[in-house]
Amino acid sequence: MQALEELVSLLTRLPGIGRKSALRMTYYLLKADPRFAEALAGRIGSLQDSVTFCSSCGSYTEEDPCPVCSGLDRDRRTICVVEQPQDVLTIEASMEYKGLYHVLGGLLSPLDGIGPDKLRIASLVQRVRKSRAGSDSSSVGEGAASDVGSGSRDPVSVEEIVLATNPTVEGDTTALYIKKVLEKEGVRVTRLATGIPVGGDLEYADRLTLARSFRGRTIL
Amino acid sequence: MQALEELVSLLTRLPGIGRKSALRMTYYLLKADPRFAEALAGRIGSLQDSVTFCSSCGSYTEEDPCPVCSGLDRDRRTICVVEQPQDVLTIEASMEYKGLYHVLGGLLSPLDGIGPDKLRIASLVQRVRKSRAGSDSSSVGEGAASDVGSGSRDPVSVEEIVLATNPTVEGDTTALYIKKVLEKEGVRVTRLATGIPVGGDLEYADRLTLARSFRGRTIL
Repeated sequence: MQALEELVSLLTRLPGIGRKSALRMTYYLLKADPRFAEALAGRIGSLQDSVTFCSSCGSYTEEDPCPVCSGLDRDRRTICVVEQPQDVLTIEASMEYKGLYHVLGGLLSPLDGIGPDKLRIASLVQRVRKSRAGSDSSSVGEGAASDVGSGSRDPVSVEEIVLATNPTVEGDTTALYIKKVLEKEGVRVTRLATGIPVGGDLEYADRLTLARSFRGRTIL
Repeated sequence: MQALEELVSLLTRLPGIGRKSALRMTYYLLKADPRFAEALAGRIGSLQDSVTFCSSCGSYTEEDPCPVCSGLDRDRRTICVVEQPQDVLTIEASMEYKGLYHVLGGLLSPLDGIGPDKLRIASLVQRVRKSRAGSDSSSVGEGAASDVGSGSRDPVSVEEIVLATNPTVEGDTTALYIKKVLEKEGVRVTRLATGIPVGGDLEYADRLTLARSFRGRTIL
């Protein structure tokens, strides 16, 4: 059956969906409430039109600037640098971080022809510089908040850049490169801790993770 | 983000799709070729309109009767009885079976209020009877093929019913019930073999499967 086969082959193009899963989904859709199929079709069709990128941080948003960049409750002294827009949503879901974000749009990968110019590194440097020029970098407090809405987006001076790229070869390389670029900007550059995941087991930790968890050990 | 969250929550209603998978699919759709998203949305939206049930066997089809029921190369002496329409597609994919099908639309389950009248059992008996009334049951051969297209769908006498319901309590019960119903129709009723799956391991076979594979052992 063509209609069925075509849907299955389209579904298998989605990540993590094999033929069996695609078939199960198709059978489900065949039997499902027509309103559900309609709603799903509608949402898939309109997704790209309704979601764009934030002109400031580069993450997914439905309005520009995004709710994080325009949020009055965010700590504007910290910018967390991530690889992809979805990393912002992942970190937001952890509810641990209250600062701003900056999406690189990829990682340095010379073999694939991805150099610093292909990533949003220049705009990161610009954001840091602009914030430090627009406010007194030594006294950061409520006084600077009066700048909000006067054109510059980050009126509070950025003090820390948290590099949250994945702890892979490309992620580490990119983090080191950004650290170097930001060296003369007088901003503190930090990196997310690597180590054994919570609930993990020493026995199953690979050698590199174990080595890094030793190097990064903290005082109890 | 509402558009994103709504799509994720719709996707998680699909079988086997959790929140993580739904998020991955959504992120993929965000970055995918717009024509892909459009095609997928279109197919999902039109699926139920283009796929219906075959009036003869009850399986999914885009034209009625379905390609199997109207196929000239099918062995019309055998009918394979399955629970759901998708079972037909699963068996067809194995390319082992060349007969016809009959979809029950469920399994007997007295506790859930599903009795024989809720399943397509009466229409199965009717198909068997009609075929045996319309042709000489003793001589089945090419001669009867001239009946094709003259109104009756199965002009060749049905000789065997293969019960292919799952080897579960409900599936076995339903199979036994159908065997009983067909007893006086003079048709051979068989059941798919149960046993250790190909590539399986005795060690991981459960007790019941092992017992059944002993009972169903064949001469080498």
